[in-house]
Amino acid sequence: MKIWLLGMHGVVATTAMVGAKALEKSIVDSNGLVSELPEFDGIEKIAPPEFDFSGHEIRWINEDAYDAALKHWNLNKHYDYEILKGVKDDLKEIIPKKGTALNCGPGVESLGELSAFEKEGYTLREIVDILRDDISEFVKNDGVVINVASTEPVVNFSKDYHDTLEGFETMLDDNITDHANASMLYAYAALKEGIPYGNFTPSVGSSIPALKELAIKNRVPHAGNDGKTGETLVKTTIAPMFLYRNMTVEGWMSYNILGDDDGKVLAHAENKESKVISKDSVLEKTYGYSPYSICEIRMFPSLVDNKIAFDFVHFRGFLGSKMKFYFIWDGIDAILAAPLILDIARFLYTAKKRGEYGVIREMGFFFKSPMDTDIVNTHRQFEILKEWYKNLGRPKGLPKKGILTLGT
Amino acid sequence: MKIWLLGMHGVVATTAMVGAKALEKSIVDSNGLVSELPEFDGIEKIAPPEFDFSGHEIRWINEDAYDAALKHWNLNKHYDYEILKGVKDDLKEIIPKKGTALNCGPGVESLGELSAFEKEGYTLREIVDILRDDISEFVKNDGVVINVASTEPVVNFSKDYHDTLEGFETMLDDNITDHANASMLYAYAALKEGIPYGNFTPSVGSSIPALKELAIKNRVPHAGNDGKTGETLVKTTIAPMFLYRNMTVEGWMSYNILGDDDGKVLAHAENKESKVISKDSVLEKTYGYSPYSICEIRMFPSLVDNKIAFDFVHFRGFLGSKMKFYFIWDGIDAILAAPLILDIARFLYTAKKRGEYGVIREMGFFFKSPMDTDIVNTHRQFEILKEWYKNLGRPKGLPKKGILTLGT
Amino acid sequence: MKIWLLGMHGVVATTAMVGAKALEKSIVDSNGLVSELPEFDGIEKIAPPEFDFSGHEIRWINEDAYDAALKHWNLNKHYDYEILKGVKDDLKEIIPKKGTALNCGPGVESLGELSAFEKEGYTLREIVDILRDDISEFVKNDGVVINVASTEPVVNFSKDYHDTLEGFETMLDDNITDHANASMLYAYAALKEGIPYGNFTPSVGSSIPALKELAIKNRVPHAGNDGKTGETLVKTTIAPMFLYRNMTVEGWMSYNILGDDDGKVLAHAENKESKVISKDSVLEKTYGYSPYSICEIRMFPSLVDNKIAFDFVHFRGFLGSKMKFYFIWDGIDAILAAPLILDIARFLYTAKKRGEYGVIREMGFFFKSPMDTDIVNTHRQFEILKEWYKNLGRPKGLPKKGILTLGT
Amino acid sequence: MKIWLLGMHGVVATTAMVGAKALEKSIVDSNGLVSELPEFDGIEKIAPPEFDFSGHEIRWINEDAYDAALKHWNLNKHYDYEILKGVKDDLKEIIPKKGTALNCGPGVESLGELSAFEKEGYTLREIVDILRDDISEFVKNDGVVINVASTEPVVNFSKDYHDTLEGFETMLDDNITDHANASMLYAYAALKEGIPYGNFTPSVGSSIPALKELAIKNRVPHAGNDGKTGETLVKTTIAPMFLYRNMTVEGWMSYNILGDDDGKVLAHAENKESKVISKDSVLEKTYGYSPYSICEIRMFPSLVDNKIAFDFVHFRGFLGSKMKFYFIWDGIDAILAAPLILDIARFLYTAKKRGEYGVIREMGFFFKSPMDTDIVNTHRQFEILKEWYKNLGRPKGLPKKGILTLGT
Repeated sequence: MKIWLLGMHGVVATTAMVGAKALEKSIVDSNGLVSELPEFDGIEKIAPPEFDFSGHEIRWINEDAYDAALKHWNLNKHYDYEILKGVKDDLKEIIPKKGTALNCGPGVESLGELSAFEKEGYTLREIVDILRDDISEFVKNDGVVINVASTEPVVNFSKDYHDTLEGFETMLDDNITDHANASMLYAYAALKEGIPYGNFTPSVGSSIPALKELAIKNRVPHAGNDGKTGETLVKTTIAPMFLYRNMTVEGWMSYNILGDDDGKVLAHAENKESKVISKDSVLEKTYGYSPYSICEIRMFPSLVDNKIAFDFVHFRGFLGSKMKFYFIWDGIDAILAAPLILDIARFLYTAKKRGEYGVIREMGFFFKSPMDTDIVNTHRQFEILKEWYKNLGRPKGLPKKGILTLGT
Repeated sequence: MKIWLLGMHGVVATTAMVGAKALEKSIVDSNGLVSELPEFDGIEKIAPPEFDFSGHEIRWINEDAYDAALKHWNLNKHYDYEILKGVKDDLKEIIPKKGTALNCGPGVESLGELSAFEKEGYTLREIVDILRDDISEFVKNDGVVINVASTEPVVNFSKDYHDTLEGFETMLDDNITDHANASMLYAYAALKEGIPYGNFTPSVGSSIPALKELAIKNRVPHAGNDGKTGETLVKTTIAPMFLYRNMTVEGWMSYNILGDDDGKVLAHAENKESKVISKDSVLEKTYGYSPYSICEIRMFPSLVDNKIAFDFVHFRGFLGSKMKFYFIWDGIDAILAAPLILDIARFLYTAKKRGEYGVIREMGFFFKSPMDTDIVNTHRQFEILKEWYKNLGRPKGLPKKGILTLGT
Repeated sequence: MKIWLLGMHGVVATTAMVGAKALEKSIVDSNGLVSELPEFDGIEKIAPPEFDFSGHEIRWINEDAYDAALKHWNLNKHYDYEILKGVKDDLKEIIPKKGTALNCGPGVESLGELSAFEKEGYTLREIVDILRDDISEFVKNDGVVINVASTEPVVNFSKDYHDTLEGFETMLDDNITDHANASMLYAYAALKEGIPYGNFTPSVGSSIPALKELAIKNRVPHAGNDGKTGETLVKTTIAPMFLYRNMTVEGWMSYNILGDDDGKVLAHAENKESKVISKDSVLEKTYGYSPYSICEIRMFPSLVDNKIAFDFVHFRGFLGSKMKFYFIWDGIDAILAAPLILDIARFLYTAKKRGEYGVIREMGFFFKSPMDTDIVNTHRQFEILKEWYKNLGRPKGLPKKGILTLGT
Repeated sequence: MKIWLLGMHGVVATTAMVGAKALEKSIVDSNGLVSELPEFDGIEKIAPPEFDFSGHEIRWINEDAYDAALKHWNLNKHYDYEILKGVKDDLKEIIPKKGTALNCGPGVESLGELSAFEKEGYTLREIVDILRDDISEFVKNDGVVINVASTEPVVNFSKDYHDTLEGFETMLDDNITDHANASMLYAYAALKEGIPYGNFTPSVGSSIPALKELAIKNRVPHAGNDGKTGETLVKTTIAPMFLYRNMTVEGWMSYNILGDDDGKVLAHAENKESKVISKDSVLEKTYGYSPYSICEIRMFPSLVDNKIAFDFVHFRGFLGSKMKFYFIWDGIDAILAAPLILDIARFLYTAKKRGEYGVIREMGFFFKSPMDTDIVNTHRQFEILKEWYKNLGRPKGLPKKGILTLGT
């Protein structure tokens, strides 16, 4: 299958490409790939673990994926150099297309000089047409689009332009740039072309009503938002424990430090806001009440792509006595995120082949802020994913095999 | 309902009694009580949260429960003194019966001079008869027996005496003391009287075939072993996360320190062994393979009943890259354990009223080493408990409401 | 000796009073008191550990010290209730005088309705006259003044009014309230009366040139600023280690959470700024270079006076390899701070008796931002304190016994 | 200068050789080298940072230092591969001589088949003669010997053979192998040849009276024992803080995990014992009393040479209130140890050139169990090292510049 990556030269995208190619060549095993678990046996028949990549970029657009991967590797050394060497030839052939960074905020602007259509005077409609052509020419109805570009600022929501597909297309035609941003345009382009779209970032992507409408209309599956890779993964795994034991969480501190481009972008308040909202809402969704919560992300340059999270939970047990729980997560962001890109691609592709469309809520397992569901408990999400997979493609008349239902 | 506590003067038992009485008087709320969650609505009609207590002891047997509770409070100050004051009159009336500490190992012997029948020359059969009389006279078919006595050494299993009820009774009649220990005798006494038995400790209790046979024969429910209160609770909550993401656990270190009587008893290698086996097996049960594992408990006197666990997980993700996860659990053992005593009592009592008997595997949620099941994932255990409760008492002919099944 | 406390009803002040009285009555031992170390033998002859207390307040000014101590105890339970009971009579007699909260910022205003002279239309000169009368009447040349009031915003420095004593007094006379704040007025009052002044807070206190001039002129010793009690104590103890081993600190994260009044005041950006500057400068003073640094304080209500610090040090060793060090400090702020109040009082009092005056730089051991010295290494500070004490009162002609010198 | 390494193919020795050569070629900077601090200016004139290496080994004795370094690098990747490539030619030329592993215990035996003289029937005297020849031929009075071999079991002390040089030589002549072990024989060989000896391990080395006598007689400086690189470095830096503040340490837990050869050797109780004694005594030396202490080292294979220490300090402050301090040290053993090999070599060499001999107590800064002194406080040790260096070679008649004295 084909994977079109938005932000193709980023550390997550390049690590995913390195990994996919290394897997094909048996340089590495399938460790880290959810879709390779025995629970998902059979997926290899629909979506074999063989991928062709391309994508849009706004940086280093004349360089190939190997050049970009090497830059990230030199900073991070996040995997064995032998792996990179082993896939060099494959990555040398992958070259991105120029994209858009419309309204991506000061964080993205700070990454250096950007190559983006809006900087050259193109209108929204012109940009979208180019994006559609690029994507469809490569994917040819045999793949998906995944957004791994930097986090955008919280979108300035407009009832007129975001609520209906008609409004959205008016915005494009009238070139109303204030209410458009890059992730929307990409999502529109993908869905318009009938290609499944996965949003691995907290950017708005396909989550506005207008684009959900488009997905239904064109019968395309999409999923998001914001890959659940580190602290939030741990948090949503452990948080239910306090609930099950009827203990009250008095406060939860989550403090994250990281370096690299992601750290640079998130060091800008506007760009960070989307991320913090995405991370912070999981406690209320878990408990039904809102414990006192600190949820922070800060730049720490020397860590590069190594992300450390410090969590502290103050909880009250029997007789009102307070106790403490601390955790430290010392992870490597790209290593945690990259395999999920491949997983999301495979599941979305399988969904399409099996006739599913609209928001695939059952893929919430992969996301911090899963669309159209309040289930954030990692364990329930995994159960739901398994059952959904098991029932995929069953004739609609038959009863589903599972019993777990979505909803709050 | 009545709760007969084995080890009535221990810190867990006294805290449970304080809490139960304080709850009745609305001095405290139901925080920490699983059975008070909305998922278990209706249990108050079968097993209302009102409890009468008594029990067996081998220490301070002329003292009342208030005296014992005060001793523990003075060392630990683990809850507000006002709570203890508020239930003083209730606890003054609770006085234990003399029990047995047969083959309880050097750890228990180190607690001080013990008052136990075997020290006065009673035979096994004589001891068992007294225990049965004490329990049935108090409980009168309206309650349960819960074991919260100190951890015994690993039992010296005997095919002759432990495998069948007949063999077990021969052991009693022939006074074969080498193969008997206190927790077995208590479990036998309870089950023989038709009273549900819960084992909150890693001691053998009712888990030998002979006593399982007795429970089936007498149609009594029983459950155990070893209350899941601290590190193991966190471990079995978080461990599945690595599995869901197909990441390999290279090693897991669990290091526990605590003081108090529990620490004193576990400082003795023989007594500690049962506990470590109970804690250590959860990784293999979770993963199917055995990661390198360190699982240790050590005495740390100044902590008294404050138990701190240090865990470190070394895991391998995509492309073979290793990452680290640490947690520190700073809990108060009795605060964590005490409410579960009341929960287990209520669920066992409800099981009996609803006609369930034998090992109640669906209560595995409460235990480190749940009998007759390999499911240790806290989340699955909670789902199973909920479904079991929902279906309790449904006529056998009807299909069960849930789909989750037990087994590996 | 007498101790006049600015912020007499705060948790630190009341805990110091409880401790001092409990020590006199042998209810507690001298654990935590630096001045009771064998290194300071003989101090009991000059400044015996017997203290009378009074002070200024802006809250609860009609209540006595016991009432205030009990309020704090009920929230924090930071020591045994028996201790508080044992000194109740002593504290019932201690009642504060009304003080000033001039320009203390929104954090202090948020504590509730304040009783302060400036709110009743008094001029600076009138306020200062009252403060002087209150202090001198109580202290009678036999004690010290210690500032334990809440942290003020960073002062708006004025060359005209802060640089010389003459300018300062012009400010008072002309009632230039914009450039005055409470801690300066108190410091002026104390020094003007010839009474030693210790500043346990990061507020400006006596650290402006004008007041240093006054201290020299009136031959009064003073010391400050900002008691070194928790994270900064650990940080300045451990930070030199990396220097000694010639390892480079790439970054240091310090993240503090606490509740209580202190947390409330510091939740206001203006008030927090003083504190963060005070804490943050220690790395540069230690290393000569400025590692990347995060230094944050955040409110966490359920902790009350329990303060937790999370530190992470990323350091580079031989061959450029990076390594990690983490610490968690789980302390009780008032317990750490209170004994130092008594220590600072005794050392300042001893200094005065031995003829020392001006800034006592050798007392830097007690402070986060010691005045007039860049030595922040806790070990060197302790050596310096010991030597200074040993040489106190030696005739000026004789060579000093020690060799450690101050300065960068 | 020349450095003769005992255990030349180990991870510490090879990392030291790589680093020294990389430093000469300016591939790396002097980060991590104590002797390159400004405090030790001038040392480059006596002991320039240029080193020739050779040594004894019992493993892989036909391989060169590059082969050994590469093996360790492949397991650990503890520094940039470019560094290793840059010094390949230099290391290819370094080939060890066969040595001895006499009475090195089961831990060392477990490393694989050993090449050692005692296995071929040589007598003690014969072995010692060979060792002396090997060392003196290479070092030629222009270097030092450093022991970086694996930890030996605690020595079986013999008054007859260890107390005097005469007794020791009788042991050699009479071939009394029960009371001899490898580290003694090497230390004897070095000192007998007049070559300074540094013991970076907890093995006995030169610390028996007989060898101290030899060092005095031959006017050779020696120093040890057991390089202070990780947890003990942090511990002896932070422990004095509690003392300075007159707070009582109720208990201190130190739990270390590591993999690699060091972990393998220390997994054997006999070999671990020396290490634990060395680490554990620092608390008593710091406080004068012995807090409750846990001090453990455990194998954790996946960490390889990455060593993680978990420490917990329970301390009591003012009014008897208890507080908690935790630290996690995530270091790379060889990176921490290797530069100290070069430092110790340079200081010992300088000492010799300046006419110092016997135990150089002032080098205690580098060791966990410094010989002939109870000073373990890292800060005092650094001050002492600086002053000693400053006064090195001053005519004996003149007063020393410093004042810090050794002794308890």
